[in-house]
Amino acid sequence: MFESAEDAAIAGVLALLLEVSGTPKAGNVDRDHNFPDLRFEHFLASASAVYPVFLKTARGKSSIGRLVLEAVESSMSWHRAKNVHFGCFMLLIPLIRCWQAEDVGKAVVEDLKRTSVEDSLAVLKAFRLSGARVMEVNELSLTEDETELRLVERNINLYDWLLHSPRENVVAMELINGYKISFKGKDVLLDFFTEHEDVNLAIVYTYHYLLSEYLDPLVIAKHGLEVAKEVREKARGVLNEFEISFDIEILKSFDEELLARGINPGSIADLTASSIYLALREGLRF
Amino acid sequence: MFESAEDAAIAGVLALLLEVSGTPKAGNVDRDHNFPDLRFEHFLASASAVYPVFLKTARGKSSIGRLVLEAVESSMSWHRAKNVHFGCFMLLIPLIRCWQAEDVGKAVVEDLKRTSVEDSLAVLKAFRLSGARVMEVNELSLTEDETELRLVERNINLYDWLLHSPRENVVAMELINGYKISFKGKDVLLDFFTEHEDVNLAIVYTYHYLLSEYLDPLVIAKHGLEVAKEVREKARGVLNEFEISFDIEILKSFDEELLARGINPGSIADLTASSIYLALREGLRF
Repeated sequence: MFESAEDAAIAGVLALLLEVSGTPKAGNVDRDHNFPDLRFEHFLASASAVYPVFLKTARGKSSIGRLVLEAVESSMSWHRAKNVHFGCFMLLIPLIRCWQAEDVGKAVVEDLKRTSVEDSLAVLKAFRLSGARVMEVNELSLTEDETELRLVERNINLYDWLLHSPRENVVAMELINGYKISFKGKDVLLDFFTEHEDVNLAIVYTYHYLLSEYLDPLVIAKHGLEVAKEVREKARGVLNEFEISFDIEILKSFDEELLARGINPGSIADLTASSIYLALREGLRF
Repeated sequence: MFESAEDAAIAGVLALLLEVSGTPKAGNVDRDHNFPDLRFEHFLASASAVYPVFLKTARGKSSIGRLVLEAVESSMSWHRAKNVHFGCFMLLIPLIRCWQAEDVGKAVVEDLKRTSVEDSLAVLKAFRLSGARVMEVNELSLTEDETELRLVERNINLYDWLLHSPRENVVAMELINGYKISFKGKDVLLDFFTEHEDVNLAIVYTYHYLLSEYLDPLVIAKHGLEVAKEVREKARGVLNEFEISFDIEILKSFDEELLARGINPGSIADLTASSIYLALREGLRF
């Protein structure tokens, strides 16, 4: 548990920084891998830029939707890339808001149930501003032009809107399920760190663990369900192999394969960030 | 110029992050190089941890010495390494305090002249707490046990104490000379970035430029004046060679040489951070 609002906000920023720095992290940006339009430095700028929003969040000011929108706006004013942290903000802002709760997962769910349609509209605006990618769904899709009208007409708050998300949207599911995946990720991270005392490797291991357990909706959206399943299976094999020798080259070659194929499991990276945040909350220091 | 105290604090944190991430940076920690007891992740934790202190600094709360001490304390509560950012804090905190001044260099000097012996004592405490390394001098040395007593007896404020520093202490000289080196570094950085649009390379170039112009007091302290001069000469040659081909391998092999010899020009890294801060202040976005 954190001792102050400042500490909760610091942990939010540090979780973003540790996540993006974790290398190798199959298919994603890390300290050694940039994409042409999305660089490691964009993540540094974005993480630095959101501290004031995280602090406001921890102090209980404003609403979830408004805070997610402010985070995206602040992030974008400090770099020239498009979406950097939308998924991370969606996961971290509710956690930081509830930093004083003992059962933070449950507290977030209760908090989400108290949101209004204004939160939904602000998240929609944040999403469009950031140019984030999501799966297409039939109704109330983040990419559907009429969504705004329908949200207002039916007075759908953020919780109800998240309930409408496709089951494959792990970030939405994580929010309505009280961070079950991130709590598991946190345990994996802390166990690995206790044994090996290497924070980068603990983060990398956690990322690949999550990749071996869950399908990434961004991979589904871009490459289809079969490719997403193939990635999960391969991650299982890679992780098993890695656990025998702890040879980093095994992870590097998997990274190279996914990068070459343009497969970027961004939602798994988001879940890694929330896992790190929970680990810091539980006292991880290195 | 920044528009708010928040922006000045963001730039302070981002300057720390961009500096340590800059790779290759001959002899120092960067995203691809850890020392056994000082890792890249320690810098991420330290940079995140000082946010509240930078924000307090930008809002004009507290005094320079007290803020440097609080920065070191906050930094150390988030990682287990010894000194990570002492030199950077000494350079950045006065700059962030004066973020609203048009002539920020002059404003810092005036600000320093208004300090009291309490600032000197707080900086001394911060230095000892962080375990930073400096050059030994004959009197009022940061490492001398009786310094505290003498500072109090003679009622020496931070400005006067900095005046007592050896000429080779570039961080102290930078403060009393209104950041002449950092302003030059800022120009070098912005010029390079304008031409090449690569923020990492612009930072790396700036670092090597500073290394080719100034002697690092930490290198003098650990290896002697002759080695420090040799490093400066070599940096000049390396920079000239790099400017012809822009082949990063030239910088990498210089980095490997210094790392192998245990030569870590930490004060030049500090000056790189203040140069980056000034570039962000002048509107650098990437």
